[in-house]
Amino acid sequence: MIFETIKSEGIAQKSYFIGSDGEAAIIDPRRDIDVYLEIAKRNNLQIKFVFETHRNEDYTIGSVELQQIVGAQIYHGSSLDFTYGKPVYDGDRFKLGRLELNILKTPGHTNESITITLKDYDTPNGFYLAFTGDALFAGETGRIDIYGESEKKKNAAQLYDSIFNKILPLGDQVIICPAHGAGSVCGAEIKEQELTTIGHEKNTNELLSYSQEEFIKYKISEKLYIPPYFQKMEELNREGPNFLGRIPELKMLKVEEFKRLMDDGAQVIDTREPSSFGGAHIPKTISIWSRGLPAFAGWMLNYHDPIIIIDEEGHSIDQISRYLIRLGYDNIYGYLGGGFSTWYMNAEPINKLELWSVHELYEKYDDPAIFLLDVREMKEWEEGHIKGSIPIYLGHLKDHLDEIPQDKKIIIYCDAGNKSTIAASVLHKNGYKDVVTVLGSIKAWKKAGYPIVRP
Amino acid sequence: MIFETIKSEGIAQKSYFIGSDGEAAIIDPRRDIDVYLEIAKRNNLQIKFVFETHRNEDYTIGSVELQQIVGAQIYHGSSLDFTYGKPVYDGDRFKLGRLELNILKTPGHTNESITITLKDYDTPNGFYLAFTGDALFAGETGRIDIYGESEKKKNAAQLYDSIFNKILPLGDQVIICPAHGAGSVCGAEIKEQELTTIGHEKNTNELLSYSQEEFIKYKISEKLYIPPYFQKMEELNREGPNFLGRIPELKMLKVEEFKRLMDDGAQVIDTREPSSFGGAHIPKTISIWSRGLPAFAGWMLNYHDPIIIIDEEGHSIDQISRYLIRLGYDNIYGYLGGGFSTWYMNAEPINKLELWSVHELYEKYDDPAIFLLDVREMKEWEEGHIKGSIPIYLGHLKDHLDEIPQDKKIIIYCDAGNKSTIAASVLHKNGYKDVVTVLGSIKAWKKAGYPIVRP
Amino acid sequence: MIFETIKSEGIAQKSYFIGSDGEAAIIDPRRDIDVYLEIAKRNNLQIKFVFETHRNEDYTIGSVELQQIVGAQIYHGSSLDFTYGKPVYDGDRFKLGRLELNILKTPGHTNESITITLKDYDTPNGFYLAFTGDALFAGETGRIDIYGESEKKKNAAQLYDSIFNKILPLGDQVIICPAHGAGSVCGAEIKEQELTTIGHEKNTNELLSYSQEEFIKYKISEKLYIPPYFQKMEELNREGPNFLGRIPELKMLKVEEFKRLMDDGAQVIDTREPSSFGGAHIPKTISIWSRGLPAFAGWMLNYHDPIIIIDEEGHSIDQISRYLIRLGYDNIYGYLGGGFSTWYMNAEPINKLELWSVHELYEKYDDPAIFLLDVREMKEWEEGHIKGSIPIYLGHLKDHLDEIPQDKKIIIYCDAGNKSTIAASVLHKNGYKDVVTVLGSIKAWKKAGYPIVRP
Amino acid sequence: MIFETIKSEGIAQKSYFIGSDGEAAIIDPRRDIDVYLEIAKRNNLQIKFVFETHRNEDYTIGSVELQQIVGAQIYHGSSLDFTYGKPVYDGDRFKLGRLELNILKTPGHTNESITITLKDYDTPNGFYLAFTGDALFAGETGRIDIYGESEKKKNAAQLYDSIFNKILPLGDQVIICPAHGAGSVCGAEIKEQELTTIGHEKNTNELLSYSQEEFIKYKISEKLYIPPYFQKMEELNREGPNFLGRIPELKMLKVEEFKRLMDDGAQVIDTREPSSFGGAHIPKTISIWSRGLPAFAGWMLNYHDPIIIIDEEGHSIDQISRYLIRLGYDNIYGYLGGGFSTWYMNAEPINKLELWSVHELYEKYDDPAIFLLDVREMKEWEEGHIKGSIPIYLGHLKDHLDEIPQDKKIIIYCDAGNKSTIAASVLHKNGYKDVVTVLGSIKAWKKAGYPIVRP
Repeated sequence: MIFETIKSEGIAQKSYFIGSDGEAAIIDPRRDIDVYLEIAKRNNLQIKFVFETHRNEDYTIGSVELQQIVGAQIYHGSSLDFTYGKPVYDGDRFKLGRLELNILKTPGHTNESITITLKDYDTPNGFYLAFTGDALFAGETGRIDIYGESEKKKNAAQLYDSIFNKILPLGDQVIICPAHGAGSVCGAEIKEQELTTIGHEKNTNELLSYSQEEFIKYKISEKLYIPPYFQKMEELNREGPNFLGRIPELKMLKVEEFKRLMDDGAQVIDTREPSSFGGAHIPKTISIWSRGLPAFAGWMLNYHDPIIIIDEEGHSIDQISRYLIRLGYDNIYGYLGGGFSTWYMNAEPINKLELWSVHELYEKYDDPAIFLLDVREMKEWEEGHIKGSIPIYLGHLKDHLDEIPQDKKIIIYCDAGNKSTIAASVLHKNGYKDVVTVLGSIKAWKKAGYPIVRP
Repeated sequence: MIFETIKSEGIAQKSYFIGSDGEAAIIDPRRDIDVYLEIAKRNNLQIKFVFETHRNEDYTIGSVELQQIVGAQIYHGSSLDFTYGKPVYDGDRFKLGRLELNILKTPGHTNESITITLKDYDTPNGFYLAFTGDALFAGETGRIDIYGESEKKKNAAQLYDSIFNKILPLGDQVIICPAHGAGSVCGAEIKEQELTTIGHEKNTNELLSYSQEEFIKYKISEKLYIPPYFQKMEELNREGPNFLGRIPELKMLKVEEFKRLMDDGAQVIDTREPSSFGGAHIPKTISIWSRGLPAFAGWMLNYHDPIIIIDEEGHSIDQISRYLIRLGYDNIYGYLGGGFSTWYMNAEPINKLELWSVHELYEKYDDPAIFLLDVREMKEWEEGHIKGSIPIYLGHLKDHLDEIPQDKKIIIYCDAGNKSTIAASVLHKNGYKDVVTVLGSIKAWKKAGYPIVRP
Repeated sequence: MIFETIKSEGIAQKSYFIGSDGEAAIIDPRRDIDVYLEIAKRNNLQIKFVFETHRNEDYTIGSVELQQIVGAQIYHGSSLDFTYGKPVYDGDRFKLGRLELNILKTPGHTNESITITLKDYDTPNGFYLAFTGDALFAGETGRIDIYGESEKKKNAAQLYDSIFNKILPLGDQVIICPAHGAGSVCGAEIKEQELTTIGHEKNTNELLSYSQEEFIKYKISEKLYIPPYFQKMEELNREGPNFLGRIPELKMLKVEEFKRLMDDGAQVIDTREPSSFGGAHIPKTISIWSRGLPAFAGWMLNYHDPIIIIDEEGHSIDQISRYLIRLGYDNIYGYLGGGFSTWYMNAEPINKLELWSVHELYEKYDDPAIFLLDVREMKEWEEGHIKGSIPIYLGHLKDHLDEIPQDKKIIIYCDAGNKSTIAASVLHKNGYKDVVTVLGSIKAWKKAGYPIVRP
Repeated sequence: MIFETIKSEGIAQKSYFIGSDGEAAIIDPRRDIDVYLEIAKRNNLQIKFVFETHRNEDYTIGSVELQQIVGAQIYHGSSLDFTYGKPVYDGDRFKLGRLELNILKTPGHTNESITITLKDYDTPNGFYLAFTGDALFAGETGRIDIYGESEKKKNAAQLYDSIFNKILPLGDQVIICPAHGAGSVCGAEIKEQELTTIGHEKNTNELLSYSQEEFIKYKISEKLYIPPYFQKMEELNREGPNFLGRIPELKMLKVEEFKRLMDDGAQVIDTREPSSFGGAHIPKTISIWSRGLPAFAGWMLNYHDPIIIIDEEGHSIDQISRYLIRLGYDNIYGYLGGGFSTWYMNAEPINKLELWSVHELYEKYDDPAIFLLDVREMKEWEEGHIKGSIPIYLGHLKDHLDEIPQDKKIIIYCDAGNKSTIAASVLHKNGYKDVVTVLGSIKAWKKAGYPIVRP
């Protein structure tokens, strides 16, 4: 038996490769599928099946790539009208070498959600793996807010039923393989464990000790943000994303071409770290540090204007391309050849962003001349913030600029200093001149022992 | 949390890399440690601890390499007088980032065997991982014959106690991470599952349903071979193997140098596939197909004469070096540059080995002029063999040559045709001229529907 | 300045990557272009130009891939009606960063052949590199027989003019970068030097000391084979090969599917070494050892029936795919999963090929019961062969089967034993039963000191 | 023939790998020798010889590594008392497969300098490659100032003799393979050409048109800096550097350990780009951007205190280790795990460096309150600088602090902004508070069309 977990960092997405006796199946593949092809070849396996636990909202599924390139058959839950692949129903069984995969209908997160259980013909007495999709995570359960406020109660009840009456009865011994790990926006607070079991969840996941009523109430009260790109992902994953065939090759741009494209409305992202962006950057560019792209590109970028990348030296472009095509950004176009230094070598104008340590903030945070902005999620702000800070979530910033004064120094913090740098670049682009990002933000603030307040 | 399983193919050994919050521990590292260094660097981890679940018998432990190169602290069970590292005792706890590792004394396979359990401070209510070493495997339990016949009963009783009173009580939810997978000689019939749990083992591992008496009786009756190199491994792993620092660079040999070394007593292994060895080979060389080296080098090679490799083109040498240093063969020396074809291009004499399909065997297997030799394990022969075959285990062949007639055609089979090719090369080297290997052997014989008999 | 030579082994093709100041050009790219993209990215270069020194006959050009993927502009000589790219004329100049490329019309090998010379603005006093295509090689000159017998004289005269009046006058100091190295079929006896200069060629290349008359006479008398696939290459390279986008992913085939395809007329190639093929192989398959594919696939395979690969373990498939798409074989389809051993494990019938050492041949070569077949080029046979051998060039074997008796033992030799194994597989497929390949062939025969005769 | 050029970026060092018929030689290997071993294995070559064209001053030679690991024989010129390897004399010949290497004594740069010429037995009529070490470069000749002022005249005369009477007579057709390329400190202005020939040098290298007298005069007048680490290199390369065996594994440091080491006198280098260092950095650290290490570490670091690295994320450490061991810095010790952000996440204090664009500089460069410092080489300053700037070469800065006022704003520029950032970090460390680096420096200043003056 071959079993490999493939993690896509940033969105904390997990896909699974299962192989046995010359045959393989992939659960929830990502769009850059070379990793699966490589495992298959190394182990002499034919990729027969792709299973999608549900129509994912946070990334573009790689099923179409696998279908086109190796002829895999795609399966998804029957309760959504997919325009590709085939539906599967509760109780369907698939033979994969000496393994058997069984389909359990487990709606709640979405209507078509399924759990796939695995049994081995050599130890046939019970399942031992369950691919639970977005139903049950390590320490967490799936979101029930995807269809909007009006459906939350119904979905919460369905999720309760799926977890308590379908998944947990599989037995304590079953290892849970969910679609996401810690850091994903698909669950409120997924734990960091790489592996867990139904028994361990029952021992440690508080939600599993709730009554049906408590569970539904809790889930309805959960407040999570829905990034705007989710809608695009849902659409693409229902209809099947464009076939790529290969990771797009970004065009190396010289300064003149870069400037022309920027003038014509290209979306320019500076993927360097906050301290680099602070030191110097190209005016009017949006900062999203590279590892933050999977989580924040979807809040900041549209799907039509060409996307152009700035990085430190022009050498991290391939990874960045992967991040973006996983989110369906087929409008990626090029990168500044040689990275940021090419810009200033060419005598182009630069901009700077003031960076503060938490110690500088501590000296000035109650100064009335500043506007202290907390761009973390409202829930985080509620759990503890710096006195006087105003909470506006990063993702909503563009729509709340009227709440931010033009005549004050704007000091922005988040959890660590990365997201506040995104926010600062958004403010810069919208004409704010005197903006500061706090390096280390709340993490360092707490570490320094400075005071935290609650509403 | 970082969790990676590192498998050493051939000996089916599993080591584990655990990381959390900047710190890492490795369980049972192999001797070529680059894989661990690479994971540590990729995840910004400091390798603090090495744990050895027991003094391994089937490979050379990499603890000394890690101690020398990254300063890791080595720990092993207290019931053996190791000349390096530090002892740990039942109940000892180690903090690793946000994880806690606990030591359970679980003797039986060896006296100093320990199980290491893992708990996460974020989900502290119970363990969820257990590194069981050679105590409990997927579908199997550890060997109790390492100290010889006289100790088997005592060891079986200890193992029963370790499994039933120490490991199983950890709970059904615990994921088991043993030191070996399917194919290892450290357990009779380890199953192929990559992952299992205590609950799943209780459901499917028949041995766990035995009473203490039944268990001890069964374990005592188990018949397993002890490869001769085990003794060397035990010695090296108790005293700490030589520090290597790097995978040895094998010398590229030209034909003249190769011949001189061979004349002077070098051990020459032909690592090509059976069909290549059958087609043509260098007289008096031993065939061990490359992926068979981890399992069979230890039966065929000594630790003093220089080892020389022949492969297809000279390009698989690095992997072969790894296989051999994992077994402590620091006497590896060189390889024939360009591989086997260099030999015949130089007009050197070649030898051939007759290869039969199972269909050819079926036509002639009851011919009195042949001697049909089954070199599989006695247990396999007992479970079903070709009528008329004489069982002599491959590993014992050299000591049983007097049972093999010089005046008959010797037809050798095993499970697939690889081990019988090793056997054929041993017979050739010992003067047998008319030797045949059966490609596909029992596997193909059964597939063809030919008859199997039992004693 | 970036300068890299990219060699495609087997066809001994050389392409060149030149970069300067953010811009790059590629001379004669091969079809799997990832190597060029990687160099461009590593050095922050934009691939602007592709130059084709001529419409190549021995491989499929990668220009279309580069045009589609990075938008490079393609240029070729003006004297052929290409259906893609743009024509260049004698004296055209291209600026590439701080370099200047100049076009010289150098017909003879083909009408549209050009030489590209390079000058550096930092040392502008004269050229120092010349990309001579198939006009001038290390120790050799280009073929003039591509257009058939009737054009040879005209072409030889043109080539003389191109070399003596265009290239040599560039000066002794110019480094020559030809389109092929030693082993190519595009020149009779290209030397092994990696680098040479006009001056060194004038010192050592005998052809350059000839008068015009001598040169033309010599070139006309040259006897070279034209592989049948050349015609396909000429066609593809004139019209532009299909756009691939990626190396095709070969399908992993299980035995049943493999057999079905073989029955339906698939072309099955066994890419293992001669000794493996000799030991055992699948009946009716064609042997072409893997590194021999670039040179011999074009003689053995058609462009319509699906191509299926057998290798040692299923792990060399990617390299083999590259070899075949470089020759335009877009009909590659799949490979036997697990390699050859999968076949016999499944109890399928095997065939063998008798292998002789040169010593066995020496004992029997004048036995009247054998038919001794030399499958090297006629020129090689003429320069020295084994007494009694009949020369039939490997590439022409299929059309000369009537010259090979069915009732004799056919002993085949070539230069080393690889090509004779191809020949043996062709005879097997055509019903010959008693066929022998000589390992080491002429190379080992000479090494052993056995007699060579001349016609 | 195998011929590969291995370039070590930063010091622009070139080593050469030559192989023929199973044997290989390496000219001037660097200390991390894995690249050579890999080429040898890929081509089935035995590394027999290492030739050192001279005792190099700018990097640590890898000869000892090759001797220890593959048993290569080391050769160097006879006029220096090396404590390892063997001397070679004018006219010595070495056979390497089908190649012949000849030794030419070519002193001048150093006494023991040799040139190695290469001839091919297949084209024996004259040499076509010459490994000229530090005698003759593309567009340049070697330094003659290594032994100090008093020896310059003698050395210049020797170099003239070596070039004009030994190397140039080899013929225009000879390809020159020198020990360095553009950017090396071993020649004043080595050109960027990757390849050149004696003929091309005669056409374009002005020095080769000089009379003996002119040449000597010119060479004596040449003003080049001698980095302080040259002395260490000369010593190590005469006595043989320590055997490493492997690239040292740097220790991942947590913040506390990092701070402790820094307090104890460790040398801490921040290898990030100028804009990152400007944005925020750890107080009292020295900035050397990573690709600048080969050239500037030798000016800034000593050979006894442990060296600690800060990079962007902790992932460029391996490359940095290579850079430093090539310079003999075996005192490299560790790196800040996670890179710079780990520091501020931990609430540690940060420092900033003001960064100006050239436009900001243009507005203020004649402000009397600033001190404008040009840290380029004196020769560069003489060729054109910004009005009012004071030239102090970066390498000499520490010894000229008394020339830099404490009470002014210090504006530093160089050619591009990297070296001025090193200079700024040196001033910071020496107590200067108000320091500015100009991004783009002279390069951007000129691009912007701002005025340049000459002394």
